Amino acid sequence: MKAEIITIGDEILIGQIVDTNSAFIAKELNKIGVSVHQITSIQDERDHILASLQDASERADIIIITGGLGPTKDDITKKCLCEFFDDNLVRNEEVLKHIERLFEKYIETPISDLNRDQALMPSKARALHNEYGTAPGMWFDHEGKAFISMPGVPYEMKALMEREVIPGIIQNFSRPVILHKTVITYGLGESALSEKIEDWEDDLPSHIKLAYLPNLGKVRLRLSAKGVDEVVLRDEIDRQVAVLNEIIGDIIYGYEEEDEIEVIIGKMLADNKWTLSTAESCSGGRLASNFTREPGSSAFFNGSLVCYATESKIKLLEVPEDLIREKSVVSAEVAEAMASGARKKFNTDFAISTTGNAGPDKGDSQEDVGTVFIGIATPSKVFSRKFMFGNHREKVVGKTVNKAMEMLQDAILKHKDDN
Amino acid sequence: MKAEIITIGDEILIGQIVDTNSAFIAKELNKIGVSVHQITSIQDERDHILASLQDASERADIIIITGGLGPTKDDITKKCLCEFFDDNLVRNEEVLKHIERLFEKYIETPISDLNRDQALMPSKARALHNEYGTAPGMWFDHEGKAFISMPGVPYEMKALMEREVIPGIIQNFSRPVILHKTVITYGLGESALSEKIEDWEDDLPSHIKLAYLPNLGKVRLRLSAKGVDEVVLRDEIDRQVAVLNEIIGDIIYGYEEEDEIEVIIGKMLADNKWTLSTAESCSGGRLASNFTREPGSSAFFNGSLVCYATESKIKLLEVPEDLIREKSVVSAEVAEAMASGARKKFNTDFAISTTGNAGPDKGDSQEDVGTVFIGIATPSKVFSRKFMFGNHREKVVGKTVNKAMEMLQDAILKHKDDN
Repeated sequence: MKAEIITIGDEILIGQIVDTNSAFIAKELNKIGVSVHQITSIQDERDHILASLQDASERADIIIITGGLGPTKDDITKKCLCEFFDDNLVRNEEVLKHIERLFEKYIETPISDLNRDQALMPSKARALHNEYGTAPGMWFDHEGKAFISMPGVPYEMKALMEREVIPGIIQNFSRPVILHKTVITYGLGESALSEKIEDWEDDLPSHIKLAYLPNLGKVRLRLSAKGVDEVVLRDEIDRQVAVLNEIIGDIIYGYEEEDEIEVIIGKMLADNKWTLSTAESCSGGRLASNFTREPGSSAFFNGSLVCYATESKIKLLEVPEDLIREKSVVSAEVAEAMASGARKKFNTDFAISTTGNAGPDKGDSQEDVGTVFIGIATPSKVFSRKFMFGNHREKVVGKTVNKAMEMLQDAILKHKDDN
Repeated sequence: MKAEIITIGDEILIGQIVDTNSAFIAKELNKIGVSVHQITSIQDERDHILASLQDASERADIIIITGGLGPTKDDITKKCLCEFFDDNLVRNEEVLKHIERLFEKYIETPISDLNRDQALMPSKARALHNEYGTAPGMWFDHEGKAFISMPGVPYEMKALMEREVIPGIIQNFSRPVILHKTVITYGLGESALSEKIEDWEDDLPSHIKLAYLPNLGKVRLRLSAKGVDEVVLRDEIDRQVAVLNEIIGDIIYGYEEEDEIEVIIGKMLADNKWTLSTAESCSGGRLASNFTREPGSSAFFNGSLVCYATESKIKLLEVPEDLIREKSVVSAEVAEAMASGARKKFNTDFAISTTGNAGPDKGDSQEDVGTVFIGIATPSKVFSRKFMFGNHREKVVGKTVNKAMEMLQDAILKHKDDN
């Protein structure tokens, strides 16, 4: 069972936007056993759209198309689909009612004929209800294959995937089981790791694939297994991971869940009615925005002080001015004072702090670019670690956030064990 | 002059990572007059890689390939390129020296044979120096076309693009001029806008294309012109925009620069030696992390208080408890008190605040989900505006950030005019 994704829109091809839709769609398809064979991004251009539809239909069973469904002239996906399926447009009354209701409720400008025309649907397509927007999704069944078109607006597309597309595919296609398990390792580079597990890798059965995913300090090993029986597959993966543990158990840090680490941490905190705050210098608010991205974060996240200026570390976090003068603003002592200060100021159980030089210049400290201290305050202790995260700003900030999350997760788990 | 981008890696096809590389590459190519015809993402799979190289070479003059250059077995791009060009691997001494130097300086694990093998290069390729990593870029000239392979690690790829690939293309290919100008409008929906400018749009010459980019409250109109003479093209675009101004001048807010709005604001602030702080409730640190993403932000950004909990608004920003009780935490008065509080606490010239319900639940206030107040404090005044940003968390936060940036930019410009 193979799928292809076609994203349509000049804005992707000129680099004005990043295509985040494809990753979301691919992930959702994978979960239900549909593998994505290719993702193709093309312009709003008739010939190219028709050729891509033809190419994809020769390789895949499910073709998912996003973009090009707006009401304006540069959006030609609907027209091209009509041409591809030799179809014509008819008014869909239910879609029209939904569009009128959206305008009444949320949109200040009066409804126009162009908006009403979004209710025109190819006669061979089934309309997929788009709760958050005026362009309906469309589902075509054609020679045993499904062609599904959705708007490119991410939150509209996401709701359509979850409520219409995934249930539709589950109902209409029998699919193999695809399972992934990702093992997180630290402390060995990609190639040293690869040499160490070479024999194990060579012995993997052909329906289990291994991928190395090095990322800012950790190497994740992703096992992907394809088969018919979920129980058998899961058992096989678990056995392979057990063998792997015998070889490199000392550097295996954990296993990747479906969820991001901030979601896992959020759950641990909320379950224990614990709270968190952050004091961020070199991470610049990135920790706070990661935690608050998820709904429900107000249950555990009290706040963050992004204290970029040294003065605000002193005034708002009550880091002693002498300490900064004596130890430097990028130091273990200041990181710990920041974590303690945040924990006290926000009245939380846990706090994380970051202070460092992300570069490219040295800033208020004499430490080398890439030097970062991460501090953690828990109900029972305060500690910090020093890191050298290299010579590139993006890398330094990214690694700081990853490492802070890991240190916090560890600290929460240890605190839980101790109590 | 057409280019295609091929990104190789299972992690993209299973949705484990978002392909941000393509947008960056496309943008850089566009700047030098190379248009991207197609972006194709495929798995680390021999047949598919070879077929994609063949397909792309039939359509494009420049083929850029990212990914699959790691030292481990799942990375097969180099092998496939050898096969495609009927080539063999030879050791490149300069690359080897660079790899050994990187290991000496930054990497704790000892260098392995697999790492040394990264210095093996196809004999027909020219090595492109990868400052930040061990896998060199590769440039093949083949039948008048360029095939350029780069690692998929974003910061390695970016440096290679800037230092090696773009200069190489400029030197080796004569290119047309491509110019974009993006007009930012507010206040009319995509379709209402389209109806209003229909005649103008129909009269555009065929070498100028128009695209509508609706995004969280604003509709951007992007004009793209292709030709041979930059001066003539720029003049043509400017004339078209002047005509557009006669029709919808009242809703044109500005023109998009190459830079993001936070970079533009940062420049305005730094040029005037003004400083900024933020007090973020519903934006959760997103404003701070946007501002601090760029190097040099410490020149103007003093810090942010992410006060998710009502208590921290009172304790840390000194928003009067009575005011919150009387007016609700989501109110104009509280937004203004937060902005004033941040301005005072961080000792800055300007401050932005956000307070609202991003949903899905109502939180500490009785206001509807989607209600957001944004406050601005300047050296001469404090004000706020109320918004209703709809029923979707991601949308509410995104619109809040966009609108806050716009309000701040306006306020800075007005303050500058007044002084």
